[in-house]
Amino acid sequence: MSRIEDLYPEGRVTLREVGLRDGLQLVKTWPSTAAKQDWIRREAAAGVRVFEAGSFLPPARFPQFADVRDVIATIEEIPGARASALAMNERAADDALQTALDEVTCVVSATEEHSQANARRSRQQAVALVRGVVRQRDASNRRPLVNAGIAMAFGCSIAGKVAEVEVLRLVESLLEAGADIVGIADTVGFVGPKQVGELTAAVAKLCGSRPFIVHLHDTRGMGIANAAAALDNGARVLDASLGGLGGCPFAPGASGNVVFEDLVYLCETKGFGTGIDIEALAGARRVAEAAMPGEPFHGALAAAGPPRTVDWRA
Amino acid sequence: MSRIEDLYPEGRVTLREVGLRDGLQLVKTWPSTAAKQDWIRREAAAGVRVFEAGSFLPPARFPQFADVRDVIATIEEIPGARASALAMNERAADDALQTALDEVTCVVSATEEHSQANARRSRQQAVALVRGVVRQRDASNRRPLVNAGIAMAFGCSIAGKVAEVEVLRLVESLLEAGADIVGIADTVGFVGPKQVGELTAAVAKLCGSRPFIVHLHDTRGMGIANAAAALDNGARVLDASLGGLGGCPFAPGASGNVVFEDLVYLCETKGFGTGIDIEALAGARRVAEAAMPGEPFHGALAAAGPPRTVDWRA
Repeated sequence: MSRIEDLYPEGRVTLREVGLRDGLQLVKTWPSTAAKQDWIRREAAAGVRVFEAGSFLPPARFPQFADVRDVIATIEEIPGARASALAMNERAADDALQTALDEVTCVVSATEEHSQANARRSRQQAVALVRGVVRQRDASNRRPLVNAGIAMAFGCSIAGKVAEVEVLRLVESLLEAGADIVGIADTVGFVGPKQVGELTAAVAKLCGSRPFIVHLHDTRGMGIANAAAALDNGARVLDASLGGLGGCPFAPGASGNVVFEDLVYLCETKGFGTGIDIEALAGARRVAEAAMPGEPFHGALAAAGPPRTVDWRA
Repeated sequence: MSRIEDLYPEGRVTLREVGLRDGLQLVKTWPSTAAKQDWIRREAAAGVRVFEAGSFLPPARFPQFADVRDVIATIEEIPGARASALAMNERAADDALQTALDEVTCVVSATEEHSQANARRSRQQAVALVRGVVRQRDASNRRPLVNAGIAMAFGCSIAGKVAEVEVLRLVESLLEAGADIVGIADTVGFVGPKQVGELTAAVAKLCGSRPFIVHLHDTRGMGIANAAAALDNGARVLDASLGGLGGCPFAPGASGNVVFEDLVYLCETKGFGTGIDIEALAGARRVAEAAMPGEPFHGALAAAGPPRTVDWRA
């Protein structure tokens, strides 16, 4: 079995928990390493398999990710669980390749403007970084997947509208650079389901049998509707976080990632089996919530619970 | 122009504000008549046209609807605005027909079990009530539409699963009884978009060119995704409430109706023009929220606002 098939098995939906990375990007307080480990173990026991463990960033500036190595080690100890982590440059990729992680993720911006403002590099340089990370990986004794995520793929907080053709060109460049898997991200939660469906279908066509990741935010309440559109158009790997942990830098108080629990409900009612026990997931959410008392946890299913009188799975 | 075309113009989406009825069904405190009037005027100025004004129920037991006549009068004074109200029996329909309302709504349960438990009548008796209300209407000097809403159409809090054929049979019976318009309601928020799409398509086929109402709840976070599925399958009239006001009797703390503001965003991104100014709607929400300080108002758009750098309308 190839590693891509190991992380993202064909013929089923994989929901990635990104709360420990994207969810902690903006928080003021964060869980202790022990609390993160408890959260992960509980969520893995509920059936979640792929976790973003954090980001290899300078601990002085991003103390919430200082324990990323320990978090990766914890995930890799759990049978069936797989760890992914962000590496924003070559040095971070070097650090990542010292660990047992299963996937290293680079981020490329969909627009030149955002690429320069966010990473002080052009899109072409960002693609070159991905190519470099692939080489670093190949030269190491580790074999993580190289994942290239396209930020602002559905609209840009700086440049505005993003043409579909620009994103598709970037997908092609990234695959050509050796990325094993690409992702398209609605980084600031701009998009509605029509556009999600259209871009997902186009990316699915480009990727063929190769999986790709759809990373959506719930900033304007479209998260679950957008996930439904993605599933309807060929997406099989979706990102989410317990309670939608994670905000938006441009909208204080706004909700963040797609709510994991609600996304499981969506998938199951649509007939996409997730292998996740929604009641056990509620327990994991309580652990995460208790570890971050100041942070808002969103989501409807957590308040209502699944229906008692109806078999809600398709 | 027929009255049905007046309330629900062909070729465009109509979003009905049900917060003043469904939204107030379970609350402990409710707005004064003046606050309701302010709320309605603000929301109508934002472009909302059809309002559920309340329910003709005994004021001693349902004091939140004691002013339903005044609320209807307020709505009917606003150019372009249309009032609907619930009448659960003949006497209530008599009362309703003394007012200038544009639509009187009866509710029928999708299952025998819920019909008996909720209204102490069989479904057949409920259909007979609709037939009776049509006659009362025809014998009066008023000409409101008669609207028959089917509660628990997507799953029942008592009987569980509801077969599509049962709902379709009920739709046929109600149209045969003279209802001008029917509605299908996910009263307790059980359903996901797959089933919404299927039942909506089947009801659309039965109704032909006649509009019908889809009434969804957000209890499990599927509200917007379900609305998207309804729109994709022929629905053109959807219910919602500002901030998703309204809960679920079986799930304390759970969210209620579809969030109006988020629904406008959904429709516009899908290319269904609503004629509603989303910024003005935010002002109306603040008025409603201020009138009910103890009640939770949900929704993402209210926190984030519409995107500034992207033209988010399709």
